[in-house]
Amino acid sequence: MAHLRSKSGGPTPDLPTLRTQFDTFAEGQPLPDGVRFETAMLGGIPAERVTAAATDAPGAVLFFHGGGYMFGSAMGYRAVTANLAAAAGTQVIAVDYRLAPEHPFPAAVEDTTAAYRALLESGAPASQIGFAGDSAGGGLVIATMLSARDAGLPMPAAGYGISPWLDLACEGGSFTELAGVDPIMTAEGALGCAAAYLQGGDASHSLASPLTADFTGLPPLMLQVGSTEMFLDDSTRAARKAALAGVHVEMQVWPDMPHVWHLWPSHVPEALAALTAGGRFLRERMTTGAS
Amino acid sequence: MAHLRSKSGGPTPDLPTLRTQFDTFAEGQPLPDGVRFETAMLGGIPAERVTAAATDAPGAVLFFHGGGYMFGSAMGYRAVTANLAAAAGTQVIAVDYRLAPEHPFPAAVEDTTAAYRALLESGAPASQIGFAGDSAGGGLVIATMLSARDAGLPMPAAGYGISPWLDLACEGGSFTELAGVDPIMTAEGALGCAAAYLQGGDASHSLASPLTADFTGLPPLMLQVGSTEMFLDDSTRAARKAALAGVHVEMQVWPDMPHVWHLWPSHVPEALAALTAGGRFLRERMTTGAS
Repeated sequence: MAHLRSKSGGPTPDLPTLRTQFDTFAEGQPLPDGVRFETAMLGGIPAERVTAAATDAPGAVLFFHGGGYMFGSAMGYRAVTANLAAAAGTQVIAVDYRLAPEHPFPAAVEDTTAAYRALLESGAPASQIGFAGDSAGGGLVIATMLSARDAGLPMPAAGYGISPWLDLACEGGSFTELAGVDPIMTAEGALGCAAAYLQGGDASHSLASPLTADFTGLPPLMLQVGSTEMFLDDSTRAARKAALAGVHVEMQVWPDMPHVWHLWPSHVPEALAALTAGGRFLRERMTTGAS
Repeated sequence: MAHLRSKSGGPTPDLPTLRTQFDTFAEGQPLPDGVRFETAMLGGIPAERVTAAATDAPGAVLFFHGGGYMFGSAMGYRAVTANLAAAAGTQVIAVDYRLAPEHPFPAAVEDTTAAYRALLESGAPASQIGFAGDSAGGGLVIATMLSARDAGLPMPAAGYGISPWLDLACEGGSFTELAGVDPIMTAEGALGCAAAYLQGGDASHSLASPLTADFTGLPPLMLQVGSTEMFLDDSTRAARKAALAGVHVEMQVWPDMPHVWHLWPSHVPEALAALTAGGRFLRERMTTGAS
Protein backbone atom coordinates (compact mmCIF):
# COMPACT_ATOMS: atom_id res chain seq x y z
CA MET A 1 0.00 0.00 0.00
CA ALA A 2 2.84 2.38 0.78
CA HIS A 3 4.27 1.56 -2.60
CA LEU A 4 0.96 2.29 -4.26
CA ARG A 5 0.39 5.45 -2.30
CA SER A 6 3.83 6.71 -3.24
CA LYS A 7 2.94 6.19 -6.87
CA SER A 8 -0.52 7.65 -6.86
CA GLY A 9 -0.74 11.16 -8.11
CA GLY A 10 -3.14 13.85 -7.04
CA PRO A 11 -3.13 17.15 -8.82
CA THR A 12 -0.18 19.28 -7.78
CA PRO A 13 1.63 22.06 -9.58
CA ASP A 14 4.35 19.67 -10.70
CA LEU A 15 2.51 18.14 -13.61
CA PRO A 16 5.56 16.94 -15.59
CA THR A 17 6.99 15.05 -12.63
CA LEU A 18 3.69 13.36 -11.90
CA ARG A 19 3.22 12.43 -15.53
CA THR A 20 6.68 10.90 -15.57
CA GLN A 21 5.76 8.84 -12.50
CA PHE A 22 2.69 7.49 -14.30
CA ASP A 23 4.85 6.61 -17.30
CA THR A 24 6.99 4.34 -15.09
CA PHE A 25 4.14 2.23 -13.67
CA ALA A 26 4.96 -0.75 -15.87
CA GLU A 27 8.63 -0.91 -14.96
CA GLY A 28 9.52 -4.23 -13.41
CA GLN A 29 6.01 -5.64 -13.85
CA PRO A 30 5.64 -9.12 -15.33
CA LEU A 31 4.56 -9.20 -18.96
CA PRO A 32 3.15 -12.16 -20.90
CA ASP A 33 5.13 -14.25 -23.34
CA GLY A 34 5.80 -12.82 -26.75
CA VAL A 35 4.60 -9.33 -26.00
CA ARG A 36 5.06 -6.67 -28.64
CA PHE A 37 4.40 -2.94 -28.49
CA GLU A 38 4.07 -0.95 -31.71
CA THR A 39 3.23 2.70 -32.20
CA ALA A 40 0.07 3.29 -34.16
CA MET A 41 -2.27 6.07 -35.21
CA LEU A 42 -6.04 5.78 -35.19
CA GLY A 43 -8.00 8.64 -36.69
CA GLY A 44 -5.09 10.95 -36.04
CA ILE A 45 -4.83 9.91 -32.40
CA PRO A 46 -1.53 8.38 -31.25
CA ALA A 47 -1.88 4.89 -29.88
CA GLU A 48 0.03 1.75 -29.04
CA ARG A 49 -0.80 -1.65 -30.47
CA VAL A 50 -0.11 -4.46 -27.98
CA THR A 51 0.00 -8.15 -28.83
CA ALA A 52 1.23 -11.25 -27.01
CA ALA A 53 1.87 -14.87 -27.91
CA ALA A 54 -1.64 -15.72 -26.75
CA THR A 55 -3.14 -13.16 -29.14
CA ASP A 56 -4.84 -15.36 -31.72
CA ALA A 57 -8.30 -13.94 -32.30
CA PRO A 58 -9.28 -11.17 -34.70
CA GLY A 59 -10.58 -7.82 -33.59
CA ALA A 60 -9.22 -5.44 -31.01
CA VAL A 61 -9.76 -4.11 -27.53
CA LEU A 62 -9.56 -0.33 -27.43
CA PHE A 63 -7.98 0.58 -24.10
CA PHE A 64 -8.39 3.94 -22.37
CA HIS A 65 -5.90 4.46 -19.54
CA GLY A 66 -6.64 6.13 -16.24
CA GLY A 67 -4.98 9.03 -14.50
CA GLY A 68 -7.73 11.50 -13.73
CA TYR A 69 -7.81 12.81 -17.32
CA MET A 70 -4.51 14.56 -16.46
CA PHE A 71 -1.97 11.74 -16.29
CA GLY A 72 -1.26 8.32 -17.72
CA SER A 73 -0.14 6.97 -21.06
CA ALA A 74 -0.10 3.81 -23.11
CA MET A 75 3.50 3.31 -21.98
CA GLY A 76 2.70 3.51 -18.29
CA TYR A 77 -0.16 1.03 -18.68
CA ARG A 78 1.78 -1.66 -20.51
CA ALA A 79 1.43 -4.11 -17.61
CA VAL A 80 -2.33 -3.79 -17.98
CA THR A 81 -2.58 -3.74 -21.78
CA ALA A 82 -0.11 -6.58 -22.33
CA ASN A 83 -1.67 -8.88 -19.77
CA LEU A 84 -5.12 -7.97 -21.06
CA ALA A 85 -4.04 -8.81 -24.62
CA ALA A 86 -3.01 -12.25 -23.39
CA ALA A 87 -6.22 -12.71 -21.39
CA ALA A 88 -8.56 -11.50 -24.13
CA GLY A 89 -6.63 -13.33 -26.83
CA THR A 90 -6.81 -10.30 -29.09
CA GLN A 91 -4.73 -7.20 -29.72
CA VAL A 92 -5.15 -4.25 -27.41
CA ILE A 93 -4.86 -0.73 -28.81
CA ALA A 94 -4.14 1.80 -26.08
CA VAL A 95 -5.27 5.28 -27.06
CA ASP A 96 -3.12 8.23 -26.02
CA TYR A 97 -5.97 10.70 -25.88
CA ARG A 98 -5.25 14.33 -25.06
CA LEU A 99 -4.89 15.22 -21.38
CA ALA A 100 -6.16 18.04 -19.17
CA PRO A 101 -5.60 20.74 -18.19
CA GLU A 102 -4.07 21.59 -21.56
CA HIS A 103 -6.96 19.85 -23.30
CA PRO A 104 -10.14 20.02 -21.23
CA PHE A 105 -13.39 18.10 -21.66
CA PRO A 106 -14.51 16.92 -24.17
CA ALA A 107 -11.06 16.47 -25.76
CA ALA A 108 -10.54 13.01 -24.23
CA VAL A 109 -13.85 11.57 -25.38
CA GLU A 110 -13.50 13.24 -28.77
CA ASP A 111 -10.20 11.41 -29.21
CA THR A 112 -11.43 8.02 -28.03
CA THR A 113 -14.47 8.34 -30.29
CA ALA A 114 -12.28 9.30 -33.24
CA ALA A 115 -10.09 6.27 -32.57
CA TYR A 116 -13.15 4.00 -32.48
CA ARG A 117 -14.53 5.50 -35.69
CA ALA A 118 -11.19 5.00 -37.42
CA LEU A 119 -10.99 1.41 -36.23
CA LEU A 120 -14.45 0.75 -37.68
CA GLU A 121 -13.51 2.47 -40.93
CA SER A 122 -10.41 0.28 -41.16
CA GLY A 123 -12.79 -2.65 -41.59
CA ALA A 124 -12.97 -4.05 -38.08
CA PRO A 125 -16.56 -5.07 -37.40
CA ALA A 126 -18.03 -3.63 -34.21
CA SER A 127 -18.80 -7.16 -33.10
CA GLN A 128 -15.06 -7.80 -32.90
CA ILE A 129 -14.25 -4.67 -30.91
CA GLY A 130 -14.26 -4.35 -27.14
CA PHE A 131 -13.63 -1.30 -24.96
CA ALA A 132 -11.65 -1.40 -21.73
CA GLY A 133 -10.32 1.23 -19.39
CA ASP A 134 -9.53 2.05 -15.79
CA SER A 135 -10.55 4.91 -13.52
CA ALA A 136 -11.03 7.95 -15.79
CA GLY A 137 -10.53 5.52 -18.66
CA GLY A 138 -13.38 3.44 -17.25
CA GLY A 139 -15.48 6.57 -17.54
CA LEU A 140 -14.31 6.85 -21.14
CA VAL A 141 -15.46 3.27 -21.81
CA ILE A 142 -19.05 4.34 -21.18
CA ALA A 143 -18.68 7.90 -22.48
CA THR A 144 -17.27 6.64 -25.78
CA MET A 145 -20.21 4.26 -26.14
CA LEU A 146 -22.62 7.12 -25.52
CA SER A 147 -20.77 9.36 -27.93
CA ALA A 148 -20.70 6.62 -30.57
CA ARG A 149 -24.39 5.89 -30.06
CA ASP A 150 -25.24 9.57 -30.50
CA ALA A 151 -23.10 9.67 -33.67
CA GLY A 152 -24.94 6.70 -35.15
CA LEU A 153 -21.98 4.35 -34.85
CA PRO A 154 -22.62 0.72 -33.89
CA MET A 155 -21.95 -0.42 -30.36
CA PRO A 156 -18.83 -2.45 -29.64
CA ALA A 157 -19.32 -6.03 -28.50
CA ALA A 158 -18.68 -5.33 -24.82
CA GLY A 159 -17.07 -2.99 -22.32
CA TYR A 160 -14.79 -3.68 -19.34
CA GLY A 161 -14.38 -0.99 -16.72
CA ILE A 162 -11.64 -1.29 -14.09
CA SER A 163 -12.37 0.81 -11.00
CA PRO A 164 -14.33 3.11 -13.29
CA TRP A 165 -14.80 6.78 -12.41
CA LEU A 166 -18.31 7.56 -13.62
CA ASP A 167 -19.30 10.58 -11.55
CA LEU A 168 -16.99 13.60 -11.59
CA ALA A 169 -19.02 15.15 -8.77
CA CYS A 170 -17.93 12.25 -6.54
CA GLU A 171 -21.35 11.90 -4.95
CA GLY A 172 -21.31 8.16 -4.27
CA GLY A 173 -21.91 7.19 -0.67
CA SER A 174 -18.60 5.37 -0.69
CA PHE A 175 -16.80 8.69 -1.12
CA THR A 176 -17.66 9.46 2.47
CA GLU A 177 -18.13 5.94 3.90
CA LEU A 178 -14.74 4.76 2.68
CA ALA A 179 -12.85 8.05 2.97
CA GLY A 180 -10.86 6.72 5.91
CA VAL A 181 -10.41 3.28 4.38
CA ASP A 182 -9.28 3.92 0.81
CA PRO A 183 -5.48 3.51 0.86
CA ILE A 184 -4.78 5.67 -2.19
CA MET A 185 -7.48 8.06 -3.26
CA THR A 186 -8.67 11.29 -1.71
CA ALA A 187 -11.73 13.31 -2.57
CA GLU A 188 -9.48 16.35 -2.98
CA GLY A 189 -7.40 14.53 -5.56
CA ALA A 190 -10.39 13.34 -7.52
CA LEU A 191 -12.21 16.65 -7.42
CA GLY A 192 -9.00 18.44 -8.38
CA CYS A 193 -8.67 16.28 -11.47
CA ALA A 194 -12.35 16.84 -12.27
CA ALA A 195 -11.85 20.61 -12.04
CA ALA A 196 -8.80 20.48 -14.29
CA TYR A 197 -10.74 18.43 -16.84
CA LEU A 198 -14.01 20.35 -16.71
CA GLN A 199 -12.54 23.86 -16.34
CA GLY A 200 -15.84 25.22 -15.18
CA GLY A 201 -17.91 22.90 -17.32
CA ASP A 202 -20.85 20.96 -15.96
CA ALA A 203 -19.84 17.82 -14.03
CA SER A 204 -23.25 16.34 -14.81
CA HIS A 205 -22.67 16.25 -18.57
CA SER A 206 -23.29 12.67 -19.59
CA LEU A 207 -19.99 12.42 -21.49
CA ALA A 208 -18.11 13.60 -18.40
CA SER A 209 -20.11 11.70 -15.79
CA PRO A 210 -21.73 8.76 -17.58
CA LEU A 211 -23.74 7.93 -14.47
CA THR A 212 -26.07 10.75 -15.52
CA ALA A 213 -26.73 9.18 -18.93
CA ASP A 214 -29.41 6.89 -20.26
CA PHE A 215 -27.72 3.47 -20.61
CA THR A 216 -30.30 2.07 -23.03
CA GLY A 217 -28.71 0.13 -25.85
CA LEU A 218 -25.27 -0.26 -24.32
CA PRO A 219 -23.55 -3.61 -24.88
CA PRO A 220 -22.69 -6.03 -22.06
CA LEU A 221 -20.57 -4.43 -19.36
CA MET A 222 -18.13 -5.83 -16.82
CA LEU A 223 -17.18 -3.62 -13.88
CA GLN A 224 -14.44 -4.51 -11.40
CA VAL A 225 -13.84 -2.50 -8.26
CA GLY A 226 -11.99 -2.96 -4.98
CA SER A 227 -13.95 -3.17 -1.75
CA THR A 228 -11.88 -0.40 -0.15
CA GLU A 229 -12.27 2.12 -2.94
CA MET A 230 -14.00 5.45 -2.61
CA PHE A 231 -15.09 4.72 -6.19
CA LEU A 232 -17.05 1.62 -5.09
CA ASP A 233 -20.43 3.27 -5.59
CA ASP A 234 -19.55 4.49 -9.06
CA SER A 235 -19.76 0.79 -9.93
CA THR A 236 -22.70 -0.19 -7.73
CA ARG A 237 -24.75 2.72 -9.10
CA ALA A 238 -23.75 1.99 -12.67
CA ALA A 239 -24.63 -1.68 -12.28
CA ARG A 240 -28.12 -0.86 -11.06
CA LYS A 241 -28.57 1.77 -13.74
CA ALA A 242 -27.45 -0.64 -16.45
CA ALA A 243 -29.77 -3.31 -15.08
CA LEU A 244 -32.81 -1.05 -15.16
CA ALA A 245 -31.91 -0.07 -18.73
CA GLY A 246 -31.92 -3.72 -19.75
CA VAL A 247 -28.16 -3.90 -20.22
CA HIS A 248 -26.30 -7.09 -19.37
CA VAL A 249 -23.97 -6.08 -16.56
CA GLU A 250 -21.57 -7.98 -14.36
CA MET A 251 -19.97 -6.36 -11.34
CA GLN A 252 -17.11 -7.93 -9.42
CA VAL A 253 -16.03 -6.51 -6.07
CA TRP A 254 -12.59 -7.70 -5.01
CA PRO A 255 -11.93 -7.56 -1.27
CA ASP A 256 -9.21 -5.28 0.06
CA MET A 257 -8.06 -4.25 -3.39
CA PRO A 258 -7.18 -0.60 -3.96
CA HIS A 259 -7.98 1.57 -6.94
CA VAL A 260 -6.77 -0.11 -10.19
CA TRP A 261 -4.83 -2.90 -8.50
CA HIS A 262 -4.49 -4.38 -11.99
CA LEU A 263 -1.42 -2.17 -12.44
CA TRP A 264 0.68 -4.12 -9.94
CA PRO A 265 0.85 -7.84 -10.77
CA SER A 266 4.24 -7.98 -9.06
CA HIS A 267 2.61 -6.94 -5.79
CA VAL A 268 -0.86 -8.55 -5.80
CA PRO A 269 -1.81 -11.82 -7.49
CA GLU A 270 -5.31 -10.41 -7.81
CA ALA A 271 -4.02 -8.13 -10.57
CA LEU A 272 -3.58 -10.91 -13.11
CA ALA A 273 -6.60 -12.80 -11.81
CA ALA A 274 -8.83 -9.78 -12.36
CA LEU A 275 -7.39 -9.05 -15.81
CA THR A 276 -7.93 -12.69 -16.72
CA ALA A 277 -11.60 -12.46 -15.74
CA GLY A 278 -12.03 -9.18 -17.59
CA GLY A 279 -10.25 -10.46 -20.67
CA ARG A 280 -12.38 -13.59 -20.67
CA PHE A 281 -15.53 -11.49 -20.44
CA LEU A 282 -14.50 -9.53 -23.52
CA ARG A 283 -13.31 -12.57 -25.45
CA GLU A 284 -16.55 -14.45 -24.88
CA ARG A 285 -18.55 -11.53 -26.29
CA MET A 286 -16.34 -10.56 -29.22
CA THR A 287 -17.18 -12.69 -32.22
CA THR A 288 -14.33 -14.73 -33.59
CA GLY A 289 -15.74 -15.33 -37.05
CA ALA A 290 -15.24 -13.18 -40.13
CA SER A 291 -17.31 -10.02 -40.28
CA MET B 1 -43.71 -15.54 -20.36
CA ALA B 2 -47.26 -16.81 -20.50
CA HIS B 3 -45.88 -20.27 -19.92
CA LEU B 4 -43.89 -19.05 -16.96
CA ARG B 5 -46.75 -17.06 -15.55
CA SER B 6 -49.01 -20.06 -15.73
CA LYS B 7 -46.50 -22.02 -13.71
CA SER B 8 -45.72 -19.49 -11.04
CA GLY B 9 -47.47 -19.99 -7.80
CA GLY B 10 -48.55 -17.39 -5.33
CA PRO B 11 -50.06 -18.46 -2.08
CA THR B 12 -53.58 -19.73 -2.54
CA PRO B 13 -55.66 -22.12 -0.50
CA ASP B 14 -54.89 -24.94 -2.92
CA LEU B 15 -51.47 -25.81 -1.59
CA PRO B 16 -51.31 -29.42 -2.82
CA THR B 17 -52.10 -28.45 -6.40
CA LEU B 18 -49.48 -25.71 -6.41
CA ARG B 19 -46.89 -28.02 -4.93
CA THR B 20 -47.64 -30.57 -7.62
CA GLN B 21 -47.11 -27.88 -10.25
CA PHE B 22 -43.69 -27.07 -8.82
CA ASP B 23 -42.82 -30.76 -8.85
CA THR B 24 -43.39 -30.86 -12.62
CA PHE B 25 -41.05 -27.98 -13.52
CA ALA B 26 -38.35 -30.29 -14.84
CA GLU B 27 -40.59 -32.25 -17.17
CA GLY B 28 -39.44 -32.00 -20.76
CA GLN B 29 -36.37 -29.92 -19.86
CA PRO B 30 -33.02 -30.92 -21.35
CA LEU B 31 -30.69 -32.71 -18.96
CA PRO B 32 -26.95 -33.26 -19.35
CA ASP B 33 -25.38 -36.50 -20.47
CA GLY B 34 -25.13 -39.30 -17.96
CA VAL B 35 -27.33 -37.70 -15.34
CA ARG B 36 -28.21 -39.74 -12.26
CA PHE B 37 -30.55 -38.94 -9.42
CA GLU B 38 -30.28 -40.87 -6.13
CA THR B 39 -32.19 -40.38 -2.94
CA ALA B 40 -30.02 -39.50 0.03
CA MET B 41 -30.25 -38.41 3.65
CA LEU B 42 -28.06 -35.74 5.21
CA GLY B 43 -28.37 -35.21 8.94
CA GLY B 44 -31.84 -36.68 8.87
CA ILE B 45 -32.95 -34.38 6.05
CA PRO B 46 -34.13 -36.00 2.83
CA ALA B 47 -32.11 -35.00 -0.20
CA GLU B 48 -31.31 -35.97 -3.76
CA ARG B 49 -27.79 -36.58 -5.02
CA VAL B 50 -27.33 -35.49 -8.63
CA THR B 51 -24.39 -36.38 -10.84
CA ALA B 52 -23.70 -36.15 -14.56
CA ALA B 53 -21.08 -37.47 -16.94
CA ALA B 54 -19.15 -34.21 -16.51
CA THR B 55 -19.03 -34.68 -12.73
CA ASP B 56 -15.38 -35.43 -12.12
CA ALA B 57 -14.28 -33.28 -9.18
CA PRO B 58 -14.59 -34.12 -5.48
CA GLY B 59 -16.79 -32.21 -3.11
CA ALA B 60 -20.40 -31.22 -3.43
CA VAL B 61 -22.70 -28.33 -4.08
CA LEU B 62 -25.53 -28.17 -1.58
CA PHE B 63 -28.57 -26.88 -3.45
CA PHE B 64 -31.54 -25.17 -1.81
CA HIS B 65 -34.55 -24.89 -4.12
CA GLY B 66 -36.87 -21.96 -4.34
CA GLY B 67 -40.62 -21.72 -4.02
CA GLY B 68 -41.27 -19.09 -1.40
CA TYR B 69 -40.49 -21.48 1.48
CA MET B 70 -43.87 -23.09 0.71
CA PHE B 71 -43.29 -24.94 -2.56
CA GLY B 72 -40.61 -26.68 -4.54
CA SER B 73 -38.67 -29.89 -4.25
CA ALA B 74 -35.49 -31.56 -5.40
CA MET B 75 -37.56 -33.33 -8.04
CA GLY B 76 -39.01 -30.15 -9.49
CA TYR B 77 -35.56 -28.57 -9.68
CA ARG B 78 -33.82 -31.39 -11.53
CA ALA B 79 -33.28 -29.25 -14.63
CA VAL B 80 -31.34 -26.82 -12.43
CA THR B 81 -29.48 -29.32 -10.26
CA ALA B 82 -28.50 -31.63 -13.12
CA ASN B 83 -27.25 -28.87 -15.38
CA LEU B 84 -25.47 -27.28 -12.43
CA ALA B 85 -23.77 -30.60 -11.63
CA ALA B 86 -22.46 -30.68 -15.18
CA ALA B 87 -21.38 -27.02 -15.07
CA ALA B 88 -19.70 -27.23 -11.69
CA GLY B 89 -18.17 -30.60 -12.42
CA THR B 90 -19.15 -31.87 -9.01
CA GLN B 91 -22.12 -33.61 -7.48
CA VAL B 92 -25.10 -31.51 -6.41
CA ILE B 93 -27.07 -32.48 -3.34
CA ALA B 94 -30.53 -30.93 -3.34
CA VAL B 95 -31.93 -30.61 0.17
CA ASP B 96 -35.64 -31.21 0.68
CA TYR B 97 -35.95 -28.93 3.68
CA ARG B 98 -39.29 -28.65 5.48
CA LEU B 99 -41.83 -26.26 3.97
CA ALA B 100 -44.18 -23.63 5.37
CA PRO B 101 -46.84 -23.16 6.48
CA GLU B 102 -46.67 -26.59 8.15
CA HIS B 103 -43.10 -25.85 9.22
CA PRO B 104 -42.53 -22.14 9.76
CA PHE B 105 -39.26 -20.26 10.14
CA PRO B 106 -36.64 -21.32 11.18
CA ALA B 107 -37.39 -24.90 10.07
CA ALA B 108 -35.94 -24.42 6.59
CA VAL B 109 -32.63 -22.95 7.73
CA GLU B 110 -32.40 -25.51 10.55
CA ASP B 111 -32.65 -28.25 7.94
CA THR B 112 -30.16 -26.75 5.50
CA THR B 113 -27.71 -26.17 8.35
CA ALA B 114 -28.19 -29.74 9.57
CA ALA B 115 -27.50 -31.00 6.06
CA TYR B 116 -24.33 -28.92 5.85
CA ARG B 117 -23.16 -30.11 9.26
CA ALA B 118 -23.75 -33.72 8.26
CA LEU B 119 -21.85 -33.24 5.00
CA LEU B 120 -18.90 -31.87 6.94
CA GLU B 121 -19.10 -34.72 9.44
CA SER B 122 -19.06 -37.19 6.57
CA GLY B 123 -15.54 -36.00 5.85
CA ALA B 124 -16.09 -33.48 3.07
CA PRO B 125 -13.80 -30.51 3.68
CA ALA B 126 -15.53 -27.14 3.70
CA SER B 127 -13.15 -26.02 0.95
CA GLN B 128 -14.76 -28.58 -1.35
CA ILE B 129 -18.34 -27.55 -0.57
CA GLY B 130 -20.34 -24.88 -2.34
CA PHE B 131 -23.85 -23.61 -1.66
CA ALA B 132 -26.33 -22.74 -4.36
CA GLY B 133 -29.98 -21.88 -4.40
CA ASP B 134 -32.68 -19.84 -6.12
CA SER B 135 -35.22 -17.34 -4.82
CA ALA B 136 -36.07 -18.42 -1.26
CA GLY B 137 -33.27 -20.95 -1.66
CA GLY B 138 -30.95 -18.06 -2.53
CA GLY B 139 -31.90 -16.60 0.80
CA LEU B 140 -31.04 -19.94 2.37
CA VAL B 141 -27.59 -19.83 0.75
CA ILE B 142 -26.74 -16.77 2.84
CA ALA B 143 -28.84 -17.72 5.87
CA THR B 144 -27.15 -21.12 6.09
CA MET B 145 -23.75 -19.46 5.97
CA LEU B 146 -24.78 -17.13 8.80
CA SER B 147 -26.21 -20.02 10.79
CA ALA B 148 -23.07 -22.07 10.24
CA ARG B 149 -20.85 -19.14 11.20
CA ASP B 150 -22.78 -18.63 14.40
CA ALA B 151 -22.49 -22.36 15.15
CA GLY B 152 -18.73 -22.29 14.70
CA LEU B 153 -18.78 -24.32 11.50
CA PRO B 154 -16.34 -23.42 8.73
CA MET B 155 -17.54 -21.47 5.75
CA PRO B 156 -18.10 -23.28 2.46
CA ALA B 157 -15.84 -22.34 -0.44
CA ALA B 158 -18.39 -20.17 -2.20
CA GLY B 159 -22.07 -19.41 -2.65
CA TYR B 160 -24.19 -18.98 -5.77
CA GLY B 161 -27.53 -17.24 -5.47
CA ILE B 162 -30.00 -17.36 -8.37
CA SER B 163 -32.56 -14.53 -8.20
CA PRO B 164 -32.08 -14.61 -4.44
CA TRP B 165 -34.82 -13.44 -2.10
CA LEU B 166 -32.98 -11.79 0.76
CA ASP B 167 -35.56 -9.42 2.24
CA LEU B 168 -38.88 -10.91 3.30
CA ALA B 169 -40.24 -7.38 3.84
CA CYS B 170 -39.79 -6.77 0.10
CA GLU B 171 -38.49 -3.24 0.62
CA GLY B 172 -36.19 -3.02 -2.40
CA GLY B 173 -36.90 -0.11 -4.73
CA SER B 174 -37.35 -2.58 -7.56
CA PHE B 175 -40.43 -3.95 -5.82
CA THR B 176 -42.23 -0.77 -6.79
CA GLU B 177 -40.17 0.36 -9.80
CA LEU B 178 -40.55 -2.97 -11.59
CA ALA B 179 -44.01 -3.91 -10.31
CA GLY B 180 -45.50 -3.32 -13.75
CA VAL B 181 -42.60 -4.91 -15.56
CA ASP B 182 -41.94 -8.18 -13.75
CA PRO B 183 -43.67 -10.86 -15.84
CA ILE B 184 -44.13 -13.38 -13.04
CA MET B 185 -43.91 -12.09 -9.51
CA THR B 186 -46.28 -9.98 -7.49
CA ALA B 187 -45.69 -8.27 -4.18
CA GLU B 188 -48.83 -9.97 -2.88
CA GLY B 189 -47.43 -13.38 -3.76
CA ALA B 190 -44.09 -12.72 -2.15
CA LEU B 191 -45.53 -11.15 0.99
CA GLY B 192 -48.02 -13.99 1.25
CA CYS B 193 -45.23 -16.53 1.23
CA ALA B 194 -43.31 -14.46 3.77
CA ALA B 195 -46.34 -14.42 6.05
CA ALA B 196 -46.80 -18.17 5.74
CA TYR B 197 -43.13 -18.73 6.57
CA LEU B 198 -42.82 -16.20 9.39
CA GLN B 199 -46.26 -16.77 10.96
CA GLY B 200 -46.01 -13.52 12.85
CA GLY B 201 -42.28 -13.70 13.34
CA ASP B 202 -39.99 -10.80 12.62
CA ALA B 203 -39.21 -10.35 8.92
CA SER B 204 -36.00 -8.58 9.88
CA HIS B 205 -34.48 -11.65 11.55
CA SER B 206 -31.12 -12.15 9.85
CA LEU B 207 -31.80 -15.83 9.15
CA ALA B 208 -35.10 -14.93 7.46
CA SER B 209 -33.92 -11.77 5.66
CA PRO B 210 -30.14 -12.07 5.32
CA LEU B 211 -29.95 -8.50 4.02
CA THR B 212 -30.22 -7.42 7.65
CA ALA B 213 -27.16 -9.45 8.68
CA ASP B 214 -23.50 -8.64 9.02
CA PHE B 215 -21.82 -10.27 6.01
CA THR B 216 -18.32 -10.23 7.51
CA GLY B 217 -16.47 -13.47 6.90
CA LEU B 218 -18.73 -14.85 4.20
CA PRO B 219 -17.02 -16.67 1.34
CA PRO B 220 -17.08 -15.44 -2.28
CA LEU B 221 -20.60 -14.95 -3.59
CA MET B 222 -22.09 -14.96 -7.07
CA LEU B 223 -25.54 -13.43 -7.52
CA GLN B 224 -27.52 -13.68 -10.75
CA VAL B 225 -30.73 -11.76 -11.30
CA GLY B 226 -32.92 -10.78 -14.22
CA SER B 227 -33.26 -7.14 -15.16
CA THR B 228 -37.05 -7.30 -15.06
CA GLU B 229 -37.31 -8.85 -11.61
CA MET B 230 -38.91 -7.18 -8.64
CA PHE B 231 -36.16 -8.98 -6.74
CA LEU B 232 -33.43 -7.01 -8.57
CA ASP B 233 -32.60 -4.88 -5.56
CA ASP B 234 -32.28 -7.87 -3.27
CA SER B 235 -29.14 -8.55 -5.31
CA THR B 236 -27.94 -4.97 -5.79
CA ARG B 237 -28.26 -4.30 -2.07
CA ALA B 238 -26.60 -7.58 -1.13
CA ALA B 239 -23.72 -6.92 -3.50
CA ARG B 240 -23.03 -3.51 -1.96
CA LYS B 241 -23.38 -4.94 1.54
CA ALA B 242 -20.99 -7.78 0.78
CA ALA B 243 -18.53 -5.33 -0.75
CA LEU B 244 -18.50 -3.10 2.30
CA ALA B 245 -17.98 -6.20 4.48
CA GLY B 246 -14.91 -7.14 2.45
CA VAL B 247 -16.57 -10.14 0.81
CA HIS B 248 -15.70 -11.05 -2.78
CA VAL B 249 -18.95 -10.66 -4.64
CA GLU B 250 -19.92 -10.92 -8.27
CA MET B 251 -23.32 -9.83 -9.49
CA GLN B 252 -24.63 -10.59 -12.95
CA VAL B 253 -27.78 -8.91 -14.26
CA TRP B 254 -29.24 -10.66 -17.27
CA PRO B 255 -31.46 -8.49 -19.47
CA ASP B 256 -35.12 -9.32 -19.85
CA MET B 257 -34.83 -12.51 -17.85
CA PRO B 258 -37.60 -13.33 -15.38
CA HIS B 259 -37.30 -14.73 -11.89
CA VAL B 260 -35.26 -17.97 -11.92
CA TRP B 261 -35.09 -18.32 -15.68
CA HIS B 262 -32.62 -21.12 -15.03
CA LEU B 263 -35.57 -23.48 -14.66
CA TRP B 264 -36.47 -23.31 -18.36
CA PRO B 265 -33.55 -24.24 -20.61
CA SER B 266 -36.04 -25.43 -23.21
CA HIS B 267 -37.46 -21.91 -23.47
CA VAL B 268 -34.48 -19.56 -22.97
CA PRO B 269 -30.87 -20.29 -23.93
CA GLU B 270 -29.85 -17.95 -21.13
CA ALA B 271 -30.86 -20.68 -18.64
CA LEU B 272 -27.94 -22.95 -19.46
CA ALA B 273 -25.61 -20.00 -20.07
CA ALA B 274 -26.31 -18.64 -16.60
CA LEU B 275 -25.97 -22.04 -14.92
CA THR B 276 -22.69 -22.52 -16.76
CA ALA B 277 -21.37 -19.23 -15.39
CA GLY B 278 -22.58 -20.02 -11.89
CA GLY B 279 -21.17 -23.52 -11.98
CA ARG B 280 -17.83 -22.22 -13.20
CA PHE B 281 -17.76 -19.68 -10.37
CA LEU B 282 -18.24 -22.48 -7.82
CA ARG B 283 -15.81 -24.86 -9.49
CA GLU B 284 -13.04 -22.27 -9.59
CA ARG B 285 -13.37 -21.66 -5.87
CA MET B 286 -13.86 -25.24 -4.65
CA THR B 287 -10.50 -26.89 -4.15
CA THR B 288 -9.92 -30.00 -6.14
CA GLY B 289 -7.13 -31.46 -4.05
CA ALA B 290 -7.42 -33.73 -1.05
CA SER B 291 -8.54 -32.10 2.15
